[in-house]
Amino acid sequence: MLENAIEKLIFHFSKLPGIGQRSARRIVLHLINNREILLPALTNALQDASAKIVQCSECGNIDVYDICSICSDPKRDQSVICVIETVSELWALERSNFFKGIYHVLGGTLSSAHGKTPSDLSIDALIRRAEKPNVSEIIVATNATLEGQTTAFYLMDKLEHLNIKISKLAYGIPVGGELDYLDEGTITAAFQSRRPF
Amino acid sequence: MLENAIEKLIFHFSKLPGIGQRSARRIVLHLINNREILLPALTNALQDASAKIVQCSECGNIDVYDICSICSDPKRDQSVICVIETVSELWALERSNFFKGIYHVLGGTLSSAHGKTPSDLSIDALIRRAEKPNVSEIIVATNATLEGQTTAFYLMDKLEHLNIKISKLAYGIPVGGELDYLDEGTITAAFQSRRPF
Repeated sequence: MLENAIEKLIFHFSKLPGIGQRSARRIVLHLINNREILLPALTNALQDASAKIVQCSECGNIDVYDICSICSDPKRDQSVICVIETVSELWALERSNFFKGIYHVLGGTLSSAHGKTPSDLSIDALIRRAEKPNVSEIIVATNATLEGQTTAFYLMDKLEHLNIKISKLAYGIPVGGELDYLDEGTITAAFQSRRPF
Repeated sequence: MLENAIEKLIFHFSKLPGIGQRSARRIVLHLINNREILLPALTNALQDASAKIVQCSECGNIDVYDICSICSDPKRDQSVICVIETVSELWALERSNFFKGIYHVLGGTLSSAHGKTPSDLSIDALIRRAEKPNVSEIIVATNATLEGQTTAFYLMDKLEHLNIKISKLAYGIPVGGELDYLDEGTITAAFQSRRPF
């Protein structure tokens, strides 16, 4: 089936996350039907990305610059470091446009199931950054999953000897959330973290 | 937002059918996380497609050969031509693996709403092919939509002076279909085309 250029292109698209055989065929037909414009544009964008994308040696973000545009932005607060699992979460936090500090990308979570140990994550680099005199707070923003929380506790343990503030994101009812649809864990967390009205 | 290579790549993916902003970001992160392998592979597949894909001058199919591999296949019955709207439908019929004749891709349907007239479709070429002495049957397999059926009637009209069999696909209950969920049109068609048990 993979003998020709069309089948190969469908194969490559069908391996991308969220795209199956059917969507891959639809995408490839769309590309072929507009091949004068779309094929060169997408090819160039991929080549460009391939040539230019680098990992920030400071925080682990991906960007076209090393040091990345967040770490090197003079308007960002270099004294607050938010620790996230992967670049996905960094992008999600940037979209909310609230956090104005800098990031540290761990590269995943501790996971016995996936054989991920502390040495597989960017933890030593985080500690080195946290030891710098200008750093005043580390916000641990790993996901609210079992593995994310295990990793958070491990980080707390590693960071607590430093004389800086270590915080984590609040748990509670998501904005727009209805109590009826929330799990017990979220409701318990919302009670525990309740605040004066 | 489109200043750098990452944003540009997300933009190009988000414009593909069935892919929104969120999926595009997910795909691009996946590509970047595996950039040593996936970026060159996808780039090469696109360049290969761009260089090699041609439209069959006989039937309008897309392939890496002109004449396409269906038209030039000696095992296919050159006397039966199945007329479909686009290459999507050709691929769908090929997947069912039943039809062993050859195809003719119209390039769409007649449509007053989209300003598509007979001269926009590959109808003259179809008539020229149908006039060849070795052709014995034309199966009109446009979609069972209003525009598909309008186009089918137009084709019947254009082809009926030729002394060959002209047929269309059967309408009826889809295999696995439940009467309760079928529309009136399909049920009516299934009654009209009923056959002895």
